[in-house]
Amino acid sequence: MSCRLAKSYGFIRFCSTATRNISMSASSSSCTNPTAGEEAKGGVTVLPVVEDKYGGVMTEISHPMDPSAFSALIQSSLSSWTLQVLSLSSFFSSVPPGKKGVWIKLPRQLIDLAEAAVKEGFWFHHAEKDYLMLVYWIPIEGDTIPSNASHRVGIGAFVINHNKEVLVVQEKTGRFQGQGIWKFPTGVVNEGEYIHDGSVGEVKEETGVDTEFVQVLAFRQTHKAFFGKSDLFFVCMLKPLSLEINAQETEIEAAQWMPWDEYTKQPFVQNHELLRYMTAICSAKANGDYEGFTPLRVSAPDQQGNLYFNTRDLR
Amino acid sequence: MSCRLAKSYGFIRFCSTATRNISMSASSSSCTNPTAGEEAKGGVTVLPVVEDKYGGVMTEISHPMDPSAFSALIQSSLSSWTLQVLSLSSFFSSVPPGKKGVWIKLPRQLIDLAEAAVKEGFWFHHAEKDYLMLVYWIPIEGDTIPSNASHRVGIGAFVINHNKEVLVVQEKTGRFQGQGIWKFPTGVVNEGEYIHDGSVGEVKEETGVDTEFVQVLAFRQTHKAFFGKSDLFFVCMLKPLSLEINAQETEIEAAQWMPWDEYTKQPFVQNHELLRYMTAICSAKANGDYEGFTPLRVSAPDQQGNLYFNTRDLR
Repeated sequence: MSCRLAKSYGFIRFCSTATRNISMSASSSSCTNPTAGEEAKGGVTVLPVVEDKYGGVMTEISHPMDPSAFSALIQSSLSSWTLQVLSLSSFFSSVPPGKKGVWIKLPRQLIDLAEAAVKEGFWFHHAEKDYLMLVYWIPIEGDTIPSNASHRVGIGAFVINHNKEVLVVQEKTGRFQGQGIWKFPTGVVNEGEYIHDGSVGEVKEETGVDTEFVQVLAFRQTHKAFFGKSDLFFVCMLKPLSLEINAQETEIEAAQWMPWDEYTKQPFVQNHELLRYMTAICSAKANGDYEGFTPLRVSAPDQQGNLYFNTRDLR
Repeated sequence: MSCRLAKSYGFIRFCSTATRNISMSASSSSCTNPTAGEEAKGGVTVLPVVEDKYGGVMTEISHPMDPSAFSALIQSSLSSWTLQVLSLSSFFSSVPPGKKGVWIKLPRQLIDLAEAAVKEGFWFHHAEKDYLMLVYWIPIEGDTIPSNASHRVGIGAFVINHNKEVLVVQEKTGRFQGQGIWKFPTGVVNEGEYIHDGSVGEVKEETGVDTEFVQVLAFRQTHKAFFGKSDLFFVCMLKPLSLEINAQETEIEAAQWMPWDEYTKQPFVQNHELLRYMTAICSAKANGDYEGFTPLRVSAPDQQGNLYFNTRDLR
C-alpha cells in the first residue's frame, strides 16, 4: 500500500492505514518481505504506522522477528519519512517543519528488538509493566515530543466525627513504623482514578469506615519524591458515614477514632511545619470557617472531568 | 564481600555496600567472575546492590557484559535473596514477608541485557530517556511495588490588566490551530517545577509578558490524557508586571490583550461547559469575590515543598 501524503486536521497524515499491529514471522529476514512492512511511495518498504494527534506516527510490534530485519525496516522507514518531511516542508508552508515523532511500542516479550531501535537512534519515552515505548525525532529542529508523566498523586484523609474525634492509623511499614505516631489515612491516587474516589476508597481500605467526600482543603507539591518524579499530595476532608473500624491487616498496625486535641498535641505534629498548617486548616474547616475546593463533574468537547473549585465563593 | 544480614530502619538490609554500579567487562562469561558480582554468604555470587527506603534492592548496570553471564548472575542472586527472605521471615516475626523488590536499572546503551532480565521474570517499572528500570518481586505475597508516575500536570494562565483586558494567544499547532480561537496561555509543568514557577515561565515564554503568581483558582482532573495517564490542569491567576507582548515564534501564531467581555463572548467559550465555569471563576476573582489557593513554602522533616491553600480563610 502506498503512503498517502495529505495534511489533515492540522497534522501530517502519512499513511491511510487503520490501527493495526505489525505481524511478522520470526523467519522474516528481509525488509522487502511483504508481511514485514508496507511499500511506500517509490517502492521503499516502511513500517506500517498509525498517526497520533501531535503529528507523530506509531508502530506497535506484536510478533517476533529477526533483529537485523527489524533494523533494516527502521532504516528504510526513517529514510522514507525524512524525505517526506523535507518535501512537505517545502511544498506546504503551513506545515511546520520539525514536527515528526516516530514511536515504537515494544511488548515486554519482544524486548530483544529494542537494541536495533536504539542503534538506529531511538531513545526511551516511557515504559509500563508490559511494554517499552521508544521514540525518534526526524526533523533537524528541536523536538516537541510530549513529556512523560511527571507527578505521583497522593491523598491524606481528614475524617472527623460528631464527637470531634479524628480517624487515625498507625502504619506497619514506612518511615513512621514503630514510632507510635497516629496519622491520617494516606494513599496513592492511581492513573484513571479521581482524587475524591481515591480518598473514599483509601479510607475504606485502611480502616473499613465508609465516607463521603467533602472537599480538597489544600495540596502540597514536592519534588524528587520517587525516581526523580514530583509529588502532589491533596489534603481532603471526608464525612464519616459509618463509625466501626476494621483495620486492614497487611498495611495498618492499628486504627482508631482519636480526640482531635490529642491528635494535634503529638510531638510529631507540633514539630512539623507542614502538619501544623494542615492541622490549622482542618481545625478551621471543622469550625466552618474555611472553604476548600469541591469537585464538580464538567464536560469538555473531548472528555469528561472533575473541576475542583471554591463553590461557596461562586454562588 | 559477604552480604550482611541485618534489619535496619524497619527494612531488610542485604549488603553493606555503598552506592555503586556493577562494573563488568564484555568478556566476563561466568557468574563467578569476581568483577561480575559479589560473593554472598555461602559462596554464591550475587549482583551488588544498594537498598532503597522501601525494603528493596537496586543494581545499576554500567558496563557491557555477556547476556548469558548476566542471566546466570540474576539467577544466582534471586536464589540467594529468596532464601534470605524466607529465613528472615521465620527468624524475625517483625520482618514482614512479601516485601522485597529487586530493581535493575539498565542504561539505554546496554538495552541488549534487558532480554535476560525479562526471561528471569523481571518486568518493566518505568523508563526515562536514557534508562529502563526493571523490577522483580521475590515473595509469594502480592507486591507492594510503588506505582509509576501517574499524572501529567498542566496550567492555564489567567492574566488580566487594569483595563480589564486578558492576555490571550492563538496557537500554531494543536487542536485549536487555524480556528481563530483566542485562549489563555497554557503549558506543561515538568517534574521538578513548581506550579507557580511553571505558570510564570510559560506566560513569559509564550507572550514575553512578566507576571507575578497570585493563586490557583481551580483545577481539573481528567483521565486517559496521554498514553493512559491522567491529567491535572491548574487554572492560575497571575498579575501582569509588564504589558508589551513579544509572541514566541515557534508555538504562538498571535498574542494580544483582549477585552474580557470579548474573550467570554467567543462561541468556543460559550459552548464549552468547562470554560464557562472557568470564566465565571475568573470573573468572580477579578471582582474580588473569589478566593483560591495561594502557595506558601513550608518544610517537612525530609523535604521542602509548597502548600497551596485558602490563606484568606485561615487568617
